[in-house]
Amino acid sequence: MDKKWYEKNGRDGNVVISTRVRLARNLEEYPFPCRCGSDLRAQIENKVTDAVVNSNSVISSRFSRVDVDNISTEEKVSLVERHLVSPEFISDKREKTLLLLDDESVSIMVNEEDHVRLQVMCEGFDLDRAYELASRIDSLLDEHLKFAFSDTLGYLTQCPTNLGTGMRASVMLHLPALHAAKAMKKMAENLSKLGLTIRGAYGEGSEPSADLYQLSNQITLGISEKTAIENLRNITKQIIAQEMKSREAMIKNIAVQDKIYRSEGILRSARQIDGSEALQLLSNVRFGVTEGLIDSIPLDTINSLIVEIQPATLMRKTGQKLTPAERDKVRAELIRSTINR
Amino acid sequence: MDKKWYEKNGRDGNVVISTRVRLARNLEEYPFPCRCGSDLRAQIENKVTDAVVNSNSVISSRFSRVDVDNISTEEKVSLVERHLVSPEFISDKREKTLLLLDDESVSIMVNEEDHVRLQVMCEGFDLDRAYELASRIDSLLDEHLKFAFSDTLGYLTQCPTNLGTGMRASVMLHLPALHAAKAMKKMAENLSKLGLTIRGAYGEGSEPSADLYQLSNQITLGISEKTAIENLRNITKQIIAQEMKSREAMIKNIAVQDKIYRSEGILRSARQIDGSEALQLLSNVRFGVTEGLIDSIPLDTINSLIVEIQPATLMRKTGQKLTPAERDKVRAELIRSTINR
Repeated sequence: MDKKWYEKNGRDGNVVISTRVRLARNLEEYPFPCRCGSDLRAQIENKVTDAVVNSNSVISSRFSRVDVDNISTEEKVSLVERHLVSPEFISDKREKTLLLLDDESVSIMVNEEDHVRLQVMCEGFDLDRAYELASRIDSLLDEHLKFAFSDTLGYLTQCPTNLGTGMRASVMLHLPALHAAKAMKKMAENLSKLGLTIRGAYGEGSEPSADLYQLSNQITLGISEKTAIENLRNITKQIIAQEMKSREAMIKNIAVQDKIYRSEGILRSARQIDGSEALQLLSNVRFGVTEGLIDSIPLDTINSLIVEIQPATLMRKTGQKLTPAERDKVRAELIRSTINR
Repeated sequence: MDKKWYEKNGRDGNVVISTRVRLARNLEEYPFPCRCGSDLRAQIENKVTDAVVNSNSVISSRFSRVDVDNISTEEKVSLVERHLVSPEFISDKREKTLLLLDDESVSIMVNEEDHVRLQVMCEGFDLDRAYELASRIDSLLDEHLKFAFSDTLGYLTQCPTNLGTGMRASVMLHLPALHAAKAMKKMAENLSKLGLTIRGAYGEGSEPSADLYQLSNQITLGISEKTAIENLRNITKQIIAQEMKSREAMIKNIAVQDKIYRSEGILRSARQIDGSEALQLLSNVRFGVTEGLIDSIPLDTINSLIVEIQPATLMRKTGQKLTPAERDKVRAELIRSTINR
């Protein structure tokens, strides 16, 4: 089976773990989801699903429909942990559907905040690839669905912050050196002036953990998709350069080296480990790998562990409900068996 | 070259690291060292040295004279770290001499608290061997020296607590399970009633660290050497049994296993480590080795590291003065190169 995006290491993978492009779309003939009753919501689900399934594109056969209302809590939460849906999507009790591409690179949330939230994820720093695939699926939907669009405003969305392009592009950054240098607060302020926002790995409202940050464009109105992406690309390149320069300086410090090697030693040997400690240790080891201190653990292995050690994804893998203490044990086993191979 | 006692693992080595027998003797014709001026102290040094060197025993040629007043501070402190002399001996500014057997199993301090402090160390639990060797050297000295002896009191010593046999026998115990079970305070109280004392690895006034304890007899008056040794032997056997039972129960705990394996992971990977952390981690790993969790690090390797990572012994090995930060680095290197062989 093909590797999923979170199991790979892509371009500029030293700093950029993944790239995401998300498009918000609404069907002209329906009210926004929050104002739809069960009947209308079900109609929307079917319409969007049909548009995907009935298209003549080869890709359409690779989509499957996930009945999010009728899967276990672990399955639901794991979708969030794998960045396939938003936390809001699974916590909403009303009718909704997820259309998911087999390699998990494309997910279409139906009846989230907007009727359609189309998202493309790919490994590494690859805005063009993510945007092109998103556009392709967007066109495919556009053949069968009539999207609410205004010549003056652009795509209409429930929340005005998405009005216009309806596009949010983002990159997931691993910034151990800038984080350690306490440079992130100031950076967030500066980025905000440039129409970008930087926050925790799970987007709005999530705290940064394990030195992972999500950088995304904020402006959707009065700007083209191309310009928005160009802005994000240029700023990301600058951050990559800053981070790499900072790493190069930091890595000479024996205390930093010590922390990295100890993190590797603990991951290779622990018999129980909670998610937050494991993430931080993986972050430290990732830093060590990019700076050539550790050569026995590939970056794609670390990337996939960052996703697989999350509580629900871990339970999904074992196929059983686990207490936190049991999870800590299974997590340690998974890490050991993966990196001690 | 033969391994030194602290580089070996002996009988009941799971719990008993080493056995020591020390005899206090004084020359009849001189005042106790504290009341001797330079001239008399020098005479005593020479007399005792001659007694060792001039004896016809094969062993006498294996002794060398260490001019403790004229060696570097590191050499001096390392003698304490290797348990060859008392801390008081090296801090005393007055004339003194050390006679040391080539394998470091026998050391004779001249002009410590008493004129002669003869000490035998051996690996593991071996009171008979230590006592027999001590007696043999004692007889050898007795041929040339006239020891202060009273038919009613026995050997005369400066401090009345040594009067009689002048013998102190002790075992160095590794008690991670009893320590963790917080059983040591109560045990110390009970032992005290039996005429035994238990304290830190460096004897009187030293705090227990890394789960190492020194158990010794206290009574020297009105008791034979044999009886004193028999008491110590029986009590030690009981403590060994208690400790092993306690380890067997503790080792089932996943948190204990986790701590042991993490300790191993850190020792195998750290780039800097202070003495106190290193000792504690070595103690944890030692526990893991005795319970079969770890089979790649032999006990004698751990025993020798416990001595070799001490600050002065570490500097003695490298042959240079090191700052504490440099020592932490060299210590981590020594541990890694030793256990990752």
